[in-house]
Amino acid sequence: MSKPKVVVTRKLIDHAQALLDSNKDLEIVQWDSEKPAPREWLLQNAQNASGILVMLTDKIDTELVSTAGSTLKTISSFSVGTDHVDTALLKSHNIRLGYTPTALTDAVADLTVMLTLMAQRRGGEAMAKVLDGEWPQMPWHPLLMTGPQLGGSTVGFLGFGRIAQATVKRLLGFGVKKVVYLTSRPGEGAREDHYGLLGGGKSEVPIQPAKSWEEVASESDVVIVGCALTPSTKHLVGKEFLAKMKKTAVLVNIARGGVVDTDALVEALDQDRIFGAGLDVIEGEPNVPKDHPILKQKRCVLVPHIGSATVPTREQMAEESVKNLLAGLRGEEMVNEVKL
Amino acid sequence: MSKPKVVVTRKLIDHAQALLDSNKDLEIVQWDSEKPAPREWLLQNAQNASGILVMLTDKIDTELVSTAGSTLKTISSFSVGTDHVDTALLKSHNIRLGYTPTALTDAVADLTVMLTLMAQRRGGEAMAKVLDGEWPQMPWHPLLMTGPQLGGSTVGFLGFGRIAQATVKRLLGFGVKKVVYLTSRPGEGAREDHYGLLGGGKSEVPIQPAKSWEEVASESDVVIVGCALTPSTKHLVGKEFLAKMKKTAVLVNIARGGVVDTDALVEALDQDRIFGAGLDVIEGEPNVPKDHPILKQKRCVLVPHIGSATVPTREQMAEESVKNLLAGLRGEEMVNEVKL
Repeated sequence: MSKPKVVVTRKLIDHAQALLDSNKDLEIVQWDSEKPAPREWLLQNAQNASGILVMLTDKIDTELVSTAGSTLKTISSFSVGTDHVDTALLKSHNIRLGYTPTALTDAVADLTVMLTLMAQRRGGEAMAKVLDGEWPQMPWHPLLMTGPQLGGSTVGFLGFGRIAQATVKRLLGFGVKKVVYLTSRPGEGAREDHYGLLGGGKSEVPIQPAKSWEEVASESDVVIVGCALTPSTKHLVGKEFLAKMKKTAVLVNIARGGVVDTDALVEALDQDRIFGAGLDVIEGEPNVPKDHPILKQKRCVLVPHIGSATVPTREQMAEESVKNLLAGLRGEEMVNEVKL
Repeated sequence: MSKPKVVVTRKLIDHAQALLDSNKDLEIVQWDSEKPAPREWLLQNAQNASGILVMLTDKIDTELVSTAGSTLKTISSFSVGTDHVDTALLKSHNIRLGYTPTALTDAVADLTVMLTLMAQRRGGEAMAKVLDGEWPQMPWHPLLMTGPQLGGSTVGFLGFGRIAQATVKRLLGFGVKKVVYLTSRPGEGAREDHYGLLGGGKSEVPIQPAKSWEEVASESDVVIVGCALTPSTKHLVGKEFLAKMKKTAVLVNIARGGVVDTDALVEALDQDRIFGAGLDVIEGEPNVPKDHPILKQKRCVLVPHIGSATVPTREQMAEESVKNLLAGLRGEEMVNEVKL
């Protein structure tokens, strides 16, 4: 009997690659590059595969699953999201799905604080002034390049899952005075307390559920978007929301671009109705051309979806996706498995 | 008898201006602009002044003190530093000197964390890619735009005063595993424990004095320069120091430009011998022309000395400098007075 075949659509990182390679009982077919595998390559090689390890750029659909055939037992995705996977299809074929949702929490929370501080302290604008050679001509005065400060502020979250709570854990050291958050059940508390911060735990500041998005918008000095994109959160931060925000407040989005109405944000920034913004995601990404209107807003910092982009996090995600693949083949427990 | 005269070299901010104006028993002569008062204006108006409130751009020297004459009781400086003041001269004339060293701690510590994260997460480079319209063409791969991560790291400080300790207070929430610091007496602990972090206090991670700069350089994943510029710290971070740093480490300077040898830093960045840098200060500032070699280093973030640039901090500094001025005139205790 031939060895079970696994298809891997990308070269992996050190330890993860070694872990994969150590399985001499498997036939490993791997796209040997850090660039995406072409769809044709994946379809050609999927035939008779028992497992497929994919990136978020690989679509798992009827065509692929049919091509693989009845041998296919498991899909392992190197990603936190599963938008690229037809989960109903996998369920109907009894194919297990692994993913890597927890590894990236710290990296994204770090980036959230970076974007918050950059939005408040005019990080992009400050760098641009220096790069443009303006520093020698900037006359010092007491309000030059000033922004708001985290100390004493209220931070509001839309969505209060693991990443949002990890962000709060970091922000407490900056002296924030209050945290409010909106869950999918307004007025109700978070389902899970990931760091012992809720219910009078380690935190010395009140961390409370909000009754409405209006409460988050109007009370917060920093609004952090940390919720999933669903029909009810699509454009939740739009014209009305932005109009209720304080003039000195900043908006940070590290979740999904579609939660924020980009046109409304550009208008609010352009008219100085909020102080600034820090974005890791935006509608239509990565198609953000050089002349995109958001790029003209000097109080807005936009980075190219690098939330999870740290070496330790990507190494952990790669290792977990190999472990999930192997567990799927062997009928063992995965590190993280999607309940189909 | 005429009212005592005070000279103020800049328009102040809301509350501070109101506090000053409320003193109807004083003759207030004030430069009515947010731009610096010309030296000639200051000299013309200093005559017979009892107090002078100055910015860090105003030099307090023999010429000014002689011009003011025997009425001069106090100088109040709107600044953390007193390099612009001839302190020996004031002492010999029995003139008191107020300054505002503590107000800015939180603002500078916030900026230190921002620069640390930007250096690790390639903040400047990431923004530049988006602004240059490169995002649509960036193929995703597991190590794209990755950097090191604060979790599990060792953070080393050169100097461990109030700002450095306030920075540690913030960094603990990010999961750093160890803090080492060098004082002016290598191997000895910090003289003051500003936040109860030392000696097994609130902190769960070891915070230890280093025996040498070599120890800080070689052990740290993040090196933060927080010391004063003195003959012994001048170019402390030079070729040798940078050579001992880890390839994955970042350098952050929020103290004084001269502690870091700029040429050596440019070379280290250019040859990828350290991962990145975040600078609020640089030698020769503000004279950093557009073609300065540091600006060609895409892993280096440089902002124009905005450490204390938050509205609440600048308001507090303005208020304290007015309070110091009034206390100096009335023989009362200042918020912060330089021991001459």
